[in-house]
Amino acid sequence: MNGDFTYCNPTKLYFGKNAMEGLNKELPKYGKNVLLVYGGGSIKRNGVYEQVIAALRANGKEIFEDAGVMPNPTIEKVYEGVARARAAKADLILAVGGGSVCDYAKAVSVSVHCDEEIWEKYFLRFEDVSCEVVPVGCVLTMVGTGSEMNGGSVITNHKEKLKIGHVFGENVYPKFSVLNPEFTFTLPKYQMISGIYDIMSHILEQYFSGTDDNTSDYIAEGLLRSLIHSAEIAAENPRDYEARSNIMWTATWALNTLIAKGKSEDWMVHMLGQAVGAHTDATHGMTLSAVTMPYYRFLLPYGTAKFARYAVNVWDVDPAGKTQTETAREGLCRMEAWMKKLGLVMNLTDLGATREMLDGMVQSTLIMEGGYKVMTAQEIRAVLEASF
Amino acid sequence: MNGDFTYCNPTKLYFGKNAMEGLNKELPKYGKNVLLVYGGGSIKRNGVYEQVIAALRANGKEIFEDAGVMPNPTIEKVYEGVARARAAKADLILAVGGGSVCDYAKAVSVSVHCDEEIWEKYFLRFEDVSCEVVPVGCVLTMVGTGSEMNGGSVITNHKEKLKIGHVFGENVYPKFSVLNPEFTFTLPKYQMISGIYDIMSHILEQYFSGTDDNTSDYIAEGLLRSLIHSAEIAAENPRDYEARSNIMWTATWALNTLIAKGKSEDWMVHMLGQAVGAHTDATHGMTLSAVTMPYYRFLLPYGTAKFARYAVNVWDVDPAGKTQTETAREGLCRMEAWMKKLGLVMNLTDLGATREMLDGMVQSTLIMEGGYKVMTAQEIRAVLEASF
Repeated sequence: MNGDFTYCNPTKLYFGKNAMEGLNKELPKYGKNVLLVYGGGSIKRNGVYEQVIAALRANGKEIFEDAGVMPNPTIEKVYEGVARARAAKADLILAVGGGSVCDYAKAVSVSVHCDEEIWEKYFLRFEDVSCEVVPVGCVLTMVGTGSEMNGGSVITNHKEKLKIGHVFGENVYPKFSVLNPEFTFTLPKYQMISGIYDIMSHILEQYFSGTDDNTSDYIAEGLLRSLIHSAEIAAENPRDYEARSNIMWTATWALNTLIAKGKSEDWMVHMLGQAVGAHTDATHGMTLSAVTMPYYRFLLPYGTAKFARYAVNVWDVDPAGKTQTETAREGLCRMEAWMKKLGLVMNLTDLGATREMLDGMVQSTLIMEGGYKVMTAQEIRAVLEASF
Repeated sequence: MNGDFTYCNPTKLYFGKNAMEGLNKELPKYGKNVLLVYGGGSIKRNGVYEQVIAALRANGKEIFEDAGVMPNPTIEKVYEGVARARAAKADLILAVGGGSVCDYAKAVSVSVHCDEEIWEKYFLRFEDVSCEVVPVGCVLTMVGTGSEMNGGSVITNHKEKLKIGHVFGENVYPKFSVLNPEFTFTLPKYQMISGIYDIMSHILEQYFSGTDDNTSDYIAEGLLRSLIHSAEIAAENPRDYEARSNIMWTATWALNTLIAKGKSEDWMVHMLGQAVGAHTDATHGMTLSAVTMPYYRFLLPYGTAKFARYAVNVWDVDPAGKTQTETAREGLCRMEAWMKKLGLVMNLTDLGATREMLDGMVQSTLIMEGGYKVMTAQEIRAVLEASF
């Protein structure tokens, strides 16, 4: 475990088929006014909305609605949510939906009592929160981002063609999250596998960095093996509770800071994917899958030993009689075959991107410095070009 | 992930070479009176005591000492600690030492404001805490029990020949723990490997149960692989920071409830070991290692598939051309060889136990029901006999 670090994750999780009962334990802790935040209305079709309303009413809450949170929530929508939360004098923001809704709820929660320009403060200058935070709770209906147990909030600014994430501190983490795997059963397959790849990418972004031996990478390998196994089962039968519950639990632990402890992180797949997302508004997980193979094949020579370890420990490649590079490459080939079989989008064209967007996407790509190679603009362009 | 469950672990961890700086962040949160709890004085020889005293003084604390906590803390000592904490009007109990000191601090923390007989209430009737709890903080100098991030407290009653653990709720977890791997460098090798085996056993107690597929078991396999690898390095060079830090981090995650989520647990190695401990006062980890092989060889026929998975995923046994039982057995053989090489005690005689103690040890063994086989008294006797 490299360096000094702290760990504290205070979010309380209620998991399982009866997880909604957790609302009755949590709601009494907060004041009367609840801002209920959700997306396009799928929660009205699958019955989750009614269950939430019933719990809020049973606990004597005044409900203020903020619907229409989009898959890539915009800063303009955040401004709208802040106004609603202020008008409601919200004591609690209850996010019901997927990671986008949770991310959005957190962005609103740190802005209600903030006097500064929030896009600039949080997403351009990455400043800490200096005002009171409205508590957030989540009822998760879509799996992937890990937003239910972390401080992350990714917001898109279409005017500036930027999609940027801020990782807030413990005081912004959801106070509680309700995780019922059955709530994810009705999700369309495209969204499900997109979420699965988001999880996979979160783990790999933290795994592909560093040359030391640390426990975090061993935990990451365990999570990857579980995810790969359960994803195959869920793709065949989306109503397999065991598989969907494993995927839900893996998603939470893939991005709640645990597997990043004592090591550096990469995050370039997300930076590339978010640049694509800012120009196409494509589904997040699919922007990641589309750039992954070109990026990892570019990165492999700079981190060959780790890619070989990945091949052996995660993809069961037999290293006997192979060079380290051959082993590493076979690992990526097996991963690519798994991705294709799962139905992930493997190129940018299928996401609606055109080569005319290349300059803009290169410009929108933030360069992170924690991985095996700090990319140049030319290298970013080459990886994006190879992703078409 | 089987069943409904909740997860919440609010302990804040400060990890690394400068972890003691965490005391300056935490101490101001509590009142003036601090009960400083420690063991036999090793913290005075390795300099940790002085650092703690300096931090307490710098933060304006009134220090009340409670020294002499023994490796298997007794209920009589707990009574003494409760009296000291009451006399000091303790606002915080600061445990400096290993798991025994942390366990002891928790037992005192739930008893200071309790009017009932605490041995009976907590360790015989396993009742919840119904009084105010004095906050506990830890500075860890010995690794193994995971007590720094959980609600566990194991207390020995010599009069009744019982060593019993109570797992308290989140409100009893340490508020913070300081984890500096360098503090463990001066520990004698016998204590170090005993702690390592305690960690290993914690993981296996949660792993060897259930027939379902769940993410917890994959995380457990990752922790096991990391531990096995780092233990070998630490046994060669106890001052290898990387190995010792991995072991310290693995210990914390081996027993903070994470890898038990969504599954049943066994815990019979601990029940057998604690019975041995109650009759011999031997080092905890060594009582576990001494009974492990006879117990797992007894258990193997009832959970063959899991033992075979363990052999392949943790001990790299090649299953090709072998029956499941053969694979499973080879896994245990490799584990046994690793244990012997590490220097663990492999029989009860070496712990000072005699066959005259057999009846008593059988009687002292609590029978748990979460594993592959609920043991009979005869089976307990047979396993203990095979451990001589």
